Amino acid sequence: MTLSFRPAVRADLPALIVLLSDDTLGTRREASVDDPRYLAAWEAVSSDPHQHLLVAELGGELIGMMQVTRTPGLSRSGAWRATLESVRIRSDHRGKGYGGQFIEYGIELARLHGCRLVQLTSDVRRTEAHRFYGRLGFKASHTGFKLELS
Amino acid sequence: MTLSFRPAVRADLPALIVLLSDDTLGTRREASVDDPRYLAAWEAVSSDPHQHLLVAELGGELIGMMQVTRTPGLSRSGAWRATLESVRIRSDHRGKGYGGQFIEYGIELARLHGCRLVQLTSDVRRTEAHRFYGRLGFKASHTGFKLELS
Repeated sequence: MTLSFRPAVRADLPALIVLLSDDTLGTRREASVDDPRYLAAWEAVSSDPHQHLLVAELGGELIGMMQVTRTPGLSRSGAWRATLESVRIRSDHRGKGYGGQFIEYGIELARLHGCRLVQLTSDVRRTEAHRFYGRLGFKASHTGFKLELS
Repeated sequence: MTLSFRPAVRADLPALIVLLSDDTLGTRREASVDDPRYLAAWEAVSSDPHQHLLVAELGGELIGMMQVTRTPGLSRSGAWRATLESVRIRSDHRGKGYGGQFIEYGIELARLHGCRLVQLTSDVRRTEAHRFYGRLGFKASHTGFKLELS
């Protein structure tokens, strides 16, 4: 079966929401597939030229997603940076190397758009993911802080 | 002397570049004030409605900066998140509580724009900064990974 990557389209939205819920940490944070907040979020992401919502397909079936956000900034001599968010591979397709190829695709997209840095944060409990990012060349050089607003 | 916060304007650019270089980690990453990459970065940041480059002034003098980036996304039930980058307080004005008030201002901006999460990463070597963010309510729940592209 062939692994391929492409930008997400509107018709992918239900499958993407299922994928976000298919996750030990995500399951309690996600709503039902028909929650209107997802459609609003889809419209915000797809209308922003600095957002790239990508999907991975295996034999035509959607098995992965990733959001690449390109951000301009003054620091590091005016470098653009790419942030990877919502990286998911369907649970029954992990550990097969698909995630690594998908991340490499995201990195290449960032490079082609002139980004000089790719960054992401991963929950400290996802120790397997941390080894995965280390193998891909990422340095665990930072502490990631989050503040939830009520 | 009065501490105040406002969006950055074009005339602030040289002072912002000096501020980025006034930093143990930043000093080797920044170029000279007249490097044209900073002007290009300024234009990219100021033309993007999701970027908020903020400055802190003390008695009319620029002593701090922070970039707040608002990002839409599908995860967490379609939550917008705010990312704080390039948080700097001039070295001779640290430890006086100005940074805390400035971060609170950034958090409030995120809240007013409907963000449900505020996030940032801080170099693991900045241990004082980590205590500072902890006091402001942030949880050090993530590991931050970076990959520099050549």
